[in-house]
Formats: sequence, C-alpha cells, structure tokens
Amino acid sequence: MSDIAGRLSIQIATCLLHQPQGGKGILLGGVPAARRGRVVILGAGVAGRNAAVVAAGLGADVVVFDKDRDKLVAARDIGPNVDGLYPHTADVGEAVRSADIVVGAVLVTGARAPHVVTSDMVRNMQPGSVIVDISVDQGGCVSRRRDRRPTMRRLTFGEGVTHFTVTNMPGAVPRTSSQALSAAIAPYAGRLADGDWQDDGDLRKGINVMAGKVVHPALLS
Amino acid sequence: MSDIAGRLSIQIATCLLHQPQGGKGILLGGVPAARRGRVVILGAGVAGRNAAVVAAGLGADVVVFDKDRDKLVAARDIGPNVDGLYPHTADVGEAVRSADIVVGAVLVTGARAPHVVTSDMVRNMQPGSVIVDISVDQGGCVSRRRDRRPTMRRLTFGEGVTHFTVTNMPGAVPRTSSQALSAAIAPYAGRLADGDWQDDGDLRKGINVMAGKVVHPALLS
Amino acid sequence: MSDIAGRLSIQIATCLLHQPQGGKGILLGGVPAARRGRVVILGAGVAGRNAAVVAAGLGADVVVFDKDRDKLVAARDIGPNVDGLYPHTADVGEAVRSADIVVGAVLVTGARAPHVVTSDMVRNMQPGSVIVDISVDQGGCVSRRRDRRPTMRRLTFGEGVTHFTVTNMPGAVPRTSSQALSAAIAPYAGRLADGDWQDDGDLRKGINVMAGKVVHPALLS
Amino acid sequence: MSDIAGRLSIQIATCLLHQPQGGKGILLGGVPAARRGRVVILGAGVAGRNAAVVAAGLGADVVVFDKDRDKLVAARDIGPNVDGLYPHTADVGEAVRSADIVVGAVLVTGARAPHVVTSDMVRNMQPGSVIVDISVDQGGCVSRRRDRRPTMRRLTFGEGVTHFTVTNMPGAVPRTSSQALSAAIAPYAGRLADGDWQDDGDLRKGINVMAGKVVHPALLS
Amino acid sequence: MSDIAGRLSIQIATCLLHQPQGGKGILLGGVPAARRGRVVILGAGVAGRNAAVVAAGLGADVVVFDKDRDKLVAARDIGPNVDGLYPHTADVGEAVRSADIVVGAVLVTGARAPHVVTSDMVRNMQPGSVIVDISVDQGGCVSRRRDRRPTMRRLTFGEGVTHFTVTNMPGAVPRTSSQALSAAIAPYAGRLADGDWQDDGDLRKGINVMAGKVVHPALLS
Amino acid sequence: MSDIAGRLSIQIATCLLHQPQGGKGILLGGVPAARRGRVVILGAGVAGRNAAVVAAGLGADVVVFDKDRDKLVAARDIGPNVDGLYPHTADVGEAVRSADIVVGAVLVTGARAPHVVTSDMVRNMQPGSVIVDISVDQGGCVSRRRDRRPTMRRLTFGEGVTHFTVTNMPGAVPRTSSQALSAAIAPYAGRLADGDWQDDGDLRKGINVMAGKVVHPALLS
Repeated sequence: MSDIAGRLSIQIATCLLHQPQGGKGILLGGVPAARRGRVVILGAGVAGRNAAVVAAGLGADVVVFDKDRDKLVAARDIGPNVDGLYPHTADVGEAVRSADIVVGAVLVTGARAPHVVTSDMVRNMQPGSVIVDISVDQGGCVSRRRDRRPTMRRLTFGEGVTHFTVTNMPGAVPRTSSQALSAAIAPYAGRLADGDWQDDGDLRKGINVMAGKVVHPALLS
Repeated sequence: MSDIAGRLSIQIATCLLHQPQGGKGILLGGVPAARRGRVVILGAGVAGRNAAVVAAGLGADVVVFDKDRDKLVAARDIGPNVDGLYPHTADVGEAVRSADIVVGAVLVTGARAPHVVTSDMVRNMQPGSVIVDISVDQGGCVSRRRDRRPTMRRLTFGEGVTHFTVTNMPGAVPRTSSQALSAAIAPYAGRLADGDWQDDGDLRKGINVMAGKVVHPALLS
Repeated sequence: MSDIAGRLSIQIATCLLHQPQGGKGILLGGVPAARRGRVVILGAGVAGRNAAVVAAGLGADVVVFDKDRDKLVAARDIGPNVDGLYPHTADVGEAVRSADIVVGAVLVTGARAPHVVTSDMVRNMQPGSVIVDISVDQGGCVSRRRDRRPTMRRLTFGEGVTHFTVTNMPGAVPRTSSQALSAAIAPYAGRLADGDWQDDGDLRKGINVMAGKVVHPALLS
Repeated sequence: MSDIAGRLSIQIATCLLHQPQGGKGILLGGVPAARRGRVVILGAGVAGRNAAVVAAGLGADVVVFDKDRDKLVAARDIGPNVDGLYPHTADVGEAVRSADIVVGAVLVTGARAPHVVTSDMVRNMQPGSVIVDISVDQGGCVSRRRDRRPTMRRLTFGEGVTHFTVTNMPGAVPRTSSQALSAAIAPYAGRLADGDWQDDGDLRKGINVMAGKVVHPALLS
Repeated sequence: MSDIAGRLSIQIATCLLHQPQGGKGILLGGVPAARRGRVVILGAGVAGRNAAVVAAGLGADVVVFDKDRDKLVAARDIGPNVDGLYPHTADVGEAVRSADIVVGAVLVTGARAPHVVTSDMVRNMQPGSVIVDISVDQGGCVSRRRDRRPTMRRLTFGEGVTHFTVTNMPGAVPRTSSQALSAAIAPYAGRLADGDWQDDGDLRKGINVMAGKVVHPALLS
Repeated sequence: MSDIAGRLSIQIATCLLHQPQGGKGILLGGVPAARRGRVVILGAGVAGRNAAVVAAGLGADVVVFDKDRDKLVAARDIGPNVDGLYPHTADVGEAVRSADIVVGAVLVTGARAPHVVTSDMVRNMQPGSVIVDISVDQGGCVSRRRDRRPTMRRLTFGEGVTHFTVTNMPGAVPRTSSQALSAAIAPYAGRLADGDWQDDGDLRKGINVMAGKVVHPALLS
C-alpha cells in the first residue's frame, strides 16, 4: 500500500496548494514565465519513491533525502528534475525552507519515525506551504506543535502551514487499493484452496493457532 | 491563462476521483496490479494540450479529440500514452463511456461552445467519474441537465457524475497566474514608459479613448 | 535467447496484422486520427519483458500479466503505455477480447506451460487478430483447438485468428543470435583454454563423463 | 497517407531482415552483446520522418538525409539515436554501404524522384540488406538495374539485396488508413451537408464541373 | 553557427568549473548525495536553446530567460529540469547569484547586446563560478569591469568569477563547423553551377558587384 | 568516487576534442548536418556506466564493452544511443579505430588492469582522438608506448592521440567529491559517537589496533 500512499501524497498536496484550499496559490508544474514548484521528500523507500515519481511527472523540482546511497541512485534515475541528498540537518533545513510541498515518508519498521523535520524548520516555511506526513501512523517524521497522535481532523494549520495527516491514506482510492491487495493475496488463496498449504513456508509462518494450540512465536512469548 | 486552466483541470479532477470527494476511488496513474485511469479531453488547443501533458505525466491513458490534424499530431507527440482522434460522435461516446475523467476544452473564439458531449453520453458514464468543463464561460461543451449558466456552486452531481464548473479557474493559483500575466504585460509597460508608445502598432490597436475622442472601431460602431 | 524471441514476437505479429498476411489491417502504433493497437503479453519474464519493450517502442497500448509483483513494477517502468496486471481469469479474458496481438510468454522451468488463454477467450477475439506463442516448446500457454504439439506449419488460422507457433524463433535472426551466444560462451571457452578449468565450479557442474566414468547426477540416477 | 507509408516501411523491412524472408538475419534493435541495426532514410518529409520515428523506437541506429536544415533539426529531435545529414553523394554512399535497411522517401511534388542512391551504392551493400522505396510511385529514388516502373512483384532481389517496391502501401492497413482518411474528409462532408458549401474557399477550389460548365483551371487550360 | 556556439558554451564552462582550471570544483550533473549544478542562460534563441539542451542533457538545473513567450514554451519542452522565465531584473539577479554557470546568449540583429547582467550581479556570484558570453561579438550581455571589447585573452577573472569571452567560438570545432557550413552552402553552390543563378532571388540579394557596377543597396548608400 | 571519475572522464575528453586543446575539432553531440561523435567505453562498472550516462546525455553514439551480461543490459537501458558488446578483441579493435573518445574503465579489485586496448589499436585511431584511462591507478587498461606508471604529466600525445592519465580524478571537483564522501562517512561517524560502536560489525572489521594489540587479519599475517 506504500506505493499508493506515496502517489496520493503528491496528488493531495497539489490541490492543497490551491488558494481556495488555503494554499499559497501556485501550480506545481509551473508554466512558461512562472517557476516550477519545489517538493522535498524525506525518505526514498517505496512511499517516498512513488511520491517522487508523481511530483517529477507533474514537472516539479524535487529533492529526496535518504541515508541509503542505493536509494539515492534510484531516486536520481527517476528524472533530471530529481536530486538525491543525504539528510544532513542543515541541508534538510535549507530545502524545507524553500519547499512548496514537504512529504514525510520515513518509515522505520516497528519503530517510531524520527523527527527529521523540526518545529523550527516548519516555522521557516512560507505561509500556504503544504506538509503531508505519510509516516503519521508511526508518530510522524515532521514535528507538530501540540499533539503527535494521528487525529480525526484531516487538516491542521500550524505555523501558517497546511498539515495533512490522515492514517490509512490508500482508503481514499478503494478500487485501486483493493485491486492491488487482491493481487497480493491471490497466490496465497490459491495455495490454501489446493489443500497442501501446510507445505508452504510463507503460509506456515502466518499461523497463529493450529489444532487448538497457540503456535505463533510472537504469541507464545 | 488557458495553459493554467488546462493544467489545473487535471489536478482538480484527480482529487475529485478520491472517494472522500465523492469520486469512484481510483488513483489516476494506477499502480502495479491496478490499471491506469482513462482521461478524455475534448479539444487540443492550448488548454486541452496542457491538460493532456499533466494527465500523461501522471501516467494516465489519455485520448484527445480535435478536428485539426496538426493538433492531433502535436497531441500524440506528448507521449505514447496519448492518442489523438477525430471527434466522430460514436467515437466520442465510446471514449466518454469508459472515461474516469472528461475535460471539456473546446474553445471557439467569440462563440458558444458546441455540445460535443451529450446528456446521453454522460448518463452512460460510471458513477463517481469526473467532468471538468473549462469552456463553461462560453456555455460549456458538456451538456448538463438543468442549467447551463456558470453557477456559484463549485460542484454538482448530475447523473451520478461529479461536474466541476468554475469560471476563471486560474484564480485558484494567483501566484503562478500573476507571474505569467506580468510577463505578458511587461513588454507593453516598458514601451509605455519609454514615451514613444504611439509608434507601437499593438498598443495603438488597444486604445479606446484618445484626446477626448472615442477611437476604438468596436466602440464607434 | 529469450530476449531475442520476445523481441521477434512483436516484429512478426506486427507484420501479420497487415491485411495481405491475413491480418485485420491495422498499424500497431496508430497515426493521428487512428487509434493505437492493443497488445496483451502473458508473462513478464525475460521474453515477455522484451516483447513489451518493442511493443511500447512502436507506440502500442500494452498490458502485461504476471503473478510476480516485482515483474509488474519493472513492466510499468518500461513506459506510460505499459500496464502491469495480475492474471485474474476475468481480467485476462477481457484484455484478450480487445487485443490486436496476444503474446504467450509464460515459461515455467521444466514444466508444461499452463493454459492461461482458453479456447473461449480466443473465440472472442476479433477476426484478423494475431497470437504468437513463445512458450510453444513447452506446450504453449494459449489453448489451440486440435493439436498442441509444435508443428512444422508456421501459421494456422483457428477461430479467425492467426496463430504463429514456431519453435526456436531466434533461428530467424542467426547473426544476432550467434553474437549473443558467443558472448555467453566466450568466458567458459577462455577458462577451458587456460587449463585449470577443473577449479571452476560452473564448468564442473556441466561435466557428464570424466576419466571414463559417468559423473553427472542427473545421468547417474 | 505518407505517415502510414513511412511507418509501414520500417515494419515491413524489419521482417524482411529475418533469414526465412531472405534477409541477413539480424534483429533491428539488437540485444545485449549484439549490435543494433543501421537504418538509412533518404528524405525527412512526413514519410521519412515517420519511418525514422519507428526505426528509432525499435532501437536502431538511424541516419536521415535531407537538404532542408529545419527538417534535419526535427529529425535529430526524434531521439539521440537519430542523426541528420546533408545528402552529399559521398556521405550517402558510405551510409548506404553499411546499412541494414534503406528507405527511399524523397517525394518531390509533381516530379520524378531523383536517383539519390545509385546502382553502385546498392552493389556495395551487404547481401540480405533491405531497400524499401516509398517514392516508387514517382519512379523511385533508388536506382534498380532493369526496370524502374512499379511492378506487381512485391519483392525483387537485385545485387543480393531485397527490394520492396509496392505502390499504395497504406492499403496493407485498411482500417488505420480509412480512419485517417475519414478524419480528413469529415470536415468537408459536414460543410457540404450544411448547404452553404459555395462559400467555402477550399471546397470551391476542388470543383471540376459546376452548373454544366467545366470550371477547374487545370481542366480549362 | 549559433547552435555550435551554444553547445560549446556549456562544454567549456563545465571544464572551467573544475578546480585545476580555477573553478569552484563542482560536477555539473551532480552525483548521488551531491547536488546538481545550476545554469542560467540569458536568451532562448538558437544559441541559448542549444546551450540549454546540453546543460539539461548533463543533468544540471537550468533556467532560461527570454521575453518571447513562444521561446519559453520551447525551452520548457527541452525537459523537466529546464525552467523558462521572463527577465525581470530582480529575477535575473537572484538566479545569477546562485548560478554555477551563466551563459550570455542575447543576440540582437545588428545592434549592441543589452547589459542584462550588471556588475553588481556578477559581484554577488560565488567565487569560482563561470560566465561564458556568446554575444561578446556585439559587446556582450554581461557587464565586465574594465573593457568591453573582445580581447585576445581567453580567460579573465573579474570579481572572483571566470569570464570566457572568445569571438568565433565555433572555430574550436572546425570539423563540425565546416560540415554544417558546407550543408548550408551546398544548395547555393549547386544553383551557381547550374548557370541560371540569376533567376534565384536569394542569390541575387547577395550580389555586391555585377558587370563592373556596385549593385548592393547597403554599399550604394 | 568511481561515479565522479566516470562522469569527469567524458567532460574532460569533450574539451580535449576541441582543436585549441590539440583535439580533432569535433563537437561530441554533433549538430544538424554534422555527425554525432563516437565514444567507446571499456568496462561497464560504476565508472564506465557513469561515463556512458554523460556521453549519451551529450548526444554521442556510445559503445560499452563488458564481459558481464547484466551490465550490458543495464548499459543498453541508458538510452537508444548506447550499445553494449562483449569485448572480443576484433570488435574492440574496430570500435576503437573509429572512436573520437576512448574511456578505459576496467577496474579489477586488487589486481593490475588487463591491457584491453593494445598499442596497435591506438596507432589505428585518427589523430586528435582522445583516450582517458580511469584505471591508470592500477596500471591502466590502455597500452601506452613508454611508461605505464601514472605520471605527473596531465597529457601525453603518443601516436597522435591525446592521452589523459591522472590519478585521483575526483580531486578536480572537491566540492562534489566531499559532499559524496561525507554522505558515505556520516552513518559511521554517527555510530562512533553513539558509543556502542563495538557492536557494529562493519566498524569492527575496520579496526587495525585495539587495546594496544594489532587485530586486523591483514596486518597479522
């Protein structure tokens, strides 16, 4: 689902930049005589990479931050309007300051996402800029003033900046999401129907209770 | 401003396809295992062409209709996911029926736009599809049930389809629009400031009243 | 050789679509005012991927089916006119029905290829469409009415559709094939000439008889 | 129709390079470890340009010759594997000598096409190379030994080279051709049906006989 | 020759950015973890456009300034890493300040080039940046401290910035230049050889002296 | 640093082709009516691949030689003006003979680079061609007449060909190089500062002396 969340993040942020939505009123891809918008993406995993693909396709000027060199190589390969940099604090701060859109996509498996973007950085952004934090399920990688828990509120406006923090973003495009999910599940469903699923290593790993006994290691401990 | 309106039309329609906005819940560019969305654009002038560029950049499957062969050639040159066809009624009807987004961009100078998309075609669209009619200032090229005048209402939902009909769309991105406008105006302003503007043919044509007399042909007649 | 077979499949099918060859008389890439052709490729391995690259390069509208998500990602990366989908039977059927060209490239190592395209699906295709089955050496992944063995006949016309089923397709371009083969063999030839080939794991695995004794496991059993 | 003829020329030549068709047995786009094929196109008008687009899309190494600088600029813009050169005789000769495919697309309105490629140049080509002469309706721009009239024979093999010289090539893809033609005719048909066609300058120019009198200048003289 | 001068300007500037040449020591296209360089081009005519094509091809971040909207549209079409802006003084100043390379390509036929880049702007550039002024034959569009005449000195270092101001830049690549020139001259040479050159309007315009009399208007006045 | 050296090799060679630098006076990317230059790259590792990316971006006709099929696939994916071939001696010789630029990028870990390009091949090159040998630190993969050790001399002109053989090429762009290096070092520096670096496998492997004792295996033996 990370690829869907990444792609949605830019589509939503693009519309939040429109003035009737409270945005700074710029067109992300620019037009002749008006500059292209700037997008900063934190994290070049599946979500971040997909966000970069959409932002680049719209014609924006994109910077992706990640510590992993291979992911930076892949980010640059998206197109000549994508730069890949190491997240030195000073460089992130400078990039965020002039950004129209910031996408937080730092996903650390089973851990709280680190606060790569500090409150100070957010305060330096221009009014009407947009932050979409995909990693909000894990606490978010962009610092927000009051609360850090995901809320029911779709939008908040801290420091003059529009924050979009919704958990389960792929729920906005259920047809696309369910097509993608069914493709991921179908092979397993086929093996279950075949009857000999006990020989399938992947399936065995997912069993919690078998023949009346709890068998999953995480539940036993 | 037509290029801005064209680009905005796809950005807005993309967000209106999301389910929380009443859309059919698909991601325009698709993802692995979920098909790309389909965009139909009526008219390949500046507005239609810019809409096609953005839709193609997002990865959609795009069809552009126009009677002018040269514009179809230019439309196909946008990318391999853009087709350019002649607007035979049957072909428009078939394309609209399976479209996720329809953009009306038939602009006829000084005339009411023809109704290229009929009410019947709209009724055949899937619920949750989106129509953005850029030519609404001229009556629109997509037929709507009740009223055809531009309204204050941003969105209407006729036949299960989301209609976006707002006049002066570039007003949503005032920074970009004013940058583009100032570039268009700047050369004339410079010549006005130079003092010898009366020698400038383009400027003379725009004069309405000079030395107390009405001089513009359109005002005299 | 799979990459050569994949590329040839589209080149040959493109010509078989011409009316003098019994095809439906369409130009695969379309032209302004005439739609692009549709290509369905079953399997996104080396052969299927190369077929997709050529079809996309010619400007066709391409759909690739595969169960492996990573291969679908790679297929979509070929270009915006390539879609990658999971082979749910209903989706394959619908895609095949409107296809101009179907390429069968489901290669399962050491096993008969599954019949992904059924006789019913073939019957629903338009007359003059073309099927090229690369996996015919393994029984083929497209069901054919009478016989399923590869035949000497280059072309058959079942259900109004042109079937191209030739084993050893790379034989059509022997110069290209032998260049590619010699590059694959050269490193081993060099090591053999060096004399110390017995230390080379890859070469040892290929030995059938050594010092008068059968040593290859597959021959011993 | 020139765009269709241009695109067909490469599709047909590609298949004629296969050994079972008498060709030299190479794959036009090459594969890893086997070089890309070389295509020489004489004339960068609509036909030549479309041939170059298809050849470049297939991955070949393409050279286009034309005297018009603007057309050379446009040819180079097709892609980095397309070169545009002035047809100095020595340069044409050298390019033809190492070509796998030569496309003759020198169309001079109302005149016999000049023989840009001489018999000597053809003799220097490698056996199994392919020449497709689109301008054969006007005498052809490639010199052939015996006869220069278009023949019923689809293929001839002079000097070890395969010559494809068929008039009315778009007839091979009648569906695509008729779609393109109907788009060209439709606007005129519409005006004819409107009744006031006599006010239409384009239509008036095409009238041969009106009210019983021959009126077309070319018929009067 | 303007296209050659434009392309050379970036190739030369790229090498002048290397530290052993006195440059700031950056790689124009960047690498993973190091940002892409910034190129500012003044003028989007043939020279400026070709400079932009090469800079974009090397992966730089490019801004082109021109007053002509159509040229800005064409500049943006080069790629997503090219922006096209109107030369408001403030915008030029800001762009030049952060540029690694500035190319002056403002060519006004038969007139001194305007000083678009002022001395103050140059003083704000970082040490080791590079300015290549193609319009130096007409006085240059970049202000230089002392002298404004083209000099024999290839390089000067005013305000810590490397200035490259050489007239007749295409002389650096004589093979390419003479090939391009011969293609431009060949059609005229052909007509001269044909004998009936006096009927050729273009040739007549170029005659200075005919039958012993000065006939060219510019020489008569 | 290999990616920087690879990119620099083409930038430097491009300028060395200019006649004032002793080169043959051609523009690498060509222009309309003048052919594109030819680049031969030996080795498709990180350095060779980056050289190919820059040469292809400049519009040259590129051939990359490598024994590894996967690297040839990746080289071809750079663009349609890049060919990937196996280094059969005859093929290397033919390619080098017609090359404008040869880049030696055969890097064998911990071993002297093999002499892929012989003195005879170099003698067959046209005067003014350029050879950049990145692998000169390991003895170089291009044979040079007298000495094979890296020298202080930046340029030598053996057999009419310009040889560029400088060790530590990334030193020419220290800003870019130090940015890239700091990104590579930063993660380790962070772990060292954390105090628990002894648990880090990668860091432990790099320790030479610990608690007064030599511990690195390579130093112990």
